[in-house]
Amino acid sequence: MTALIAGAASTTFGKHDDLSARELFRDAAEAAIGLVSLTAVDIDAVYVGNFMGALTDDQGHMGALMADYLGIPDVPTATVESACASSGTAVSRAVDAIDAGQADVVLVGGVEMMYATGIAVITDALANAADNEYENEAGLTFPGIYALMAREYMNTYDVSEEDLAQVAVKNRRNGVSNPISQFQEEVTIEEVLEARPIAPPLGLFDCCPITDGASALIVVSPEFAANHGLSPDVRIAGRGQAGDTLALQDREDMGRTRAAERAAERAYTAAGIVPEDIDVCEVHDCFTIAELLAVESLGLCERGEGATLTTTGETAKEGRIPVNTSGGLIAKGHPVGATGVAQLVEIVKQLEGRHPNQVPDSAIGVTHNVGGSGASAVVHVLEVAG
Amino acid sequence: MTALIAGAASTTFGKHDDLSARELFRDAAEAAIGLVSLTAVDIDAVYVGNFMGALTDDQGHMGALMADYLGIPDVPTATVESACASSGTAVSRAVDAIDAGQADVVLVGGVEMMYATGIAVITDALANAADNEYENEAGLTFPGIYALMAREYMNTYDVSEEDLAQVAVKNRRNGVSNPISQFQEEVTIEEVLEARPIAPPLGLFDCCPITDGASALIVVSPEFAANHGLSPDVRIAGRGQAGDTLALQDREDMGRTRAAERAAERAYTAAGIVPEDIDVCEVHDCFTIAELLAVESLGLCERGEGATLTTTGETAKEGRIPVNTSGGLIAKGHPVGATGVAQLVEIVKQLEGRHPNQVPDSAIGVTHNVGGSGASAVVHVLEVAG
Repeated sequence: MTALIAGAASTTFGKHDDLSARELFRDAAEAAIGLVSLTAVDIDAVYVGNFMGALTDDQGHMGALMADYLGIPDVPTATVESACASSGTAVSRAVDAIDAGQADVVLVGGVEMMYATGIAVITDALANAADNEYENEAGLTFPGIYALMAREYMNTYDVSEEDLAQVAVKNRRNGVSNPISQFQEEVTIEEVLEARPIAPPLGLFDCCPITDGASALIVVSPEFAANHGLSPDVRIAGRGQAGDTLALQDREDMGRTRAAERAAERAYTAAGIVPEDIDVCEVHDCFTIAELLAVESLGLCERGEGATLTTTGETAKEGRIPVNTSGGLIAKGHPVGATGVAQLVEIVKQLEGRHPNQVPDSAIGVTHNVGGSGASAVVHVLEVAG
Repeated sequence: MTALIAGAASTTFGKHDDLSARELFRDAAEAAIGLVSLTAVDIDAVYVGNFMGALTDDQGHMGALMADYLGIPDVPTATVESACASSGTAVSRAVDAIDAGQADVVLVGGVEMMYATGIAVITDALANAADNEYENEAGLTFPGIYALMAREYMNTYDVSEEDLAQVAVKNRRNGVSNPISQFQEEVTIEEVLEARPIAPPLGLFDCCPITDGASALIVVSPEFAANHGLSPDVRIAGRGQAGDTLALQDREDMGRTRAAERAAERAYTAAGIVPEDIDVCEVHDCFTIAELLAVESLGLCERGEGATLTTTGETAKEGRIPVNTSGGLIAKGHPVGATGVAQLVEIVKQLEGRHPNQVPDSAIGVTHNVGGSGASAVVHVLEVAG
């Protein structure tokens, strides 16, 4: 039980149209491998999270491609897809492989190339995460879906567009000091509120950007670590995954992400923690509203209190429970297939005390990765190994 | 260890353009569930093999979609992709989840819809299983890739086009009695040899067709079976997975599938068997040449002897080691994402003594599922549970 994270790295996030997916993934993987006294030949399996390679790169079979390009073509591989939760889900499959005794060292990562093919292809490709028959065919794309979620939430609770905007302001502020972040400038509350509307109440700065990026983790069994003199700083103490209806219209409450609630409950139970134990979180803020739903799903506050948690500064990097010290998807960027692993990379940096927005004495961190409008959710609890 | 298969079913394979992917998958899943005293609510996780849904159905996130459509939206899901080995790989991830204690009952299946979008889209989509930069961009598609493999093999060994054709004759003959088979008519050796050339030496009947189809398994832990009064007839005694270079050009010998050799070795070791113990096999005969490489990789004969094994009738349904009693991909059809699970479904029927081409006293069966030209391979050993 409790696999260890021996290496963790992300490329810079942003525009990488001078590289192919394999080159970008290799950069992340080699950086992760380089952090530990391993070579690629120690790796038993490669799992890759990727969502839209068939549409952006005319390339499937990414697991095999990446292992091959890293010089380890012989190993078992898989591509794991669960929309925007692809690589979070891949991490759980990697830990399964270790717990099942099928592997001692798994390279699990993710990659997405979103810039080169243009926004029209990407909007279509992203829509594949929703229910094509009942949502896309009706004209819904993701900004519209999250706008509906925001409207429902704002109808239920006393939450304003300004409250939503505070999430963007906070995350953009965190992104300034994160060297991998796609956006490195702050935005003001006025800029967020006056930005071009995308799908009201969501404006341009309420939405994460499209992003090229890759992330990778080296996950090892405790036995392998012990036998090879490795002392990784971080272990995966708990993981939880759950689902919900694919189409938003089939949910009782569109302003609530039940899958994430259940995933968090399972992960906390597995790790033996309660929300009050958490020092730092990376959550899936694909839109500002998503971060409010996320902090509620993680039990960091009561339902309806997510906005207050933000506006009172409790989720700021200096706050009681810092959320998205990386800048989150909104500032760091959202290379879909890489995002889940990228969240773990950020938490590893926090628990190792080397994060650019370091939260003092971080010992327990949580990641929250969501697919579609919440039809998939994966939560991981990371702890300082000791 | 050794998960049990409590239910196994495939839809008919062929043209289902009156159904959507979710409907076809549901048909297979409900049939598999109906074979055991379970309901959908007993299922802990859903893993779906699918390769080209983004291109054929504008639909990703298939795991979540299928769980939702079966009325169990809450469960963890994943889509597993490894080209034509997608659902074989998904089975191994399902067994991982059970062995890791993360699930007691996993619905693992696959689905592919290939007819409705037309042959041009499908040819492009299939090519995504190869190396886009080094193979597709050079004009290679899969018939050409396997033709190269056949040429290399025929240059090394004394094997003729007529020898290849015997695989098609055998598998089409087996397909006649399999009610799910896409093709239910025999072909003669002359018809195979005189058929329209596709990529010489491969003609039309050397190639598997495009196919709509879905397959599903209910995999359960031994503890769950014991606690719920289930006595499944079949267990997964061993599994092995391995890889090879994605591009054919990077292999030392294009007429050999090393990944399948390694996968078989691992699966046999895990099951504690030798090739001589095997009673019946389903192998990945996407082209006739592929079956010759498959039987050699599985150790059913020496290298270079695959053709003799076929032409002497040893792999016929009445032979010493019957291969593809289902009709294989060539006759049964090849709905890419479903094929790996479909192979297990056929072996389960053999071990349960209810196969339309029953091999007497089958106690040990093997499946061999390959992705691309052999960059991924998954082998499962199934045994009568006792």
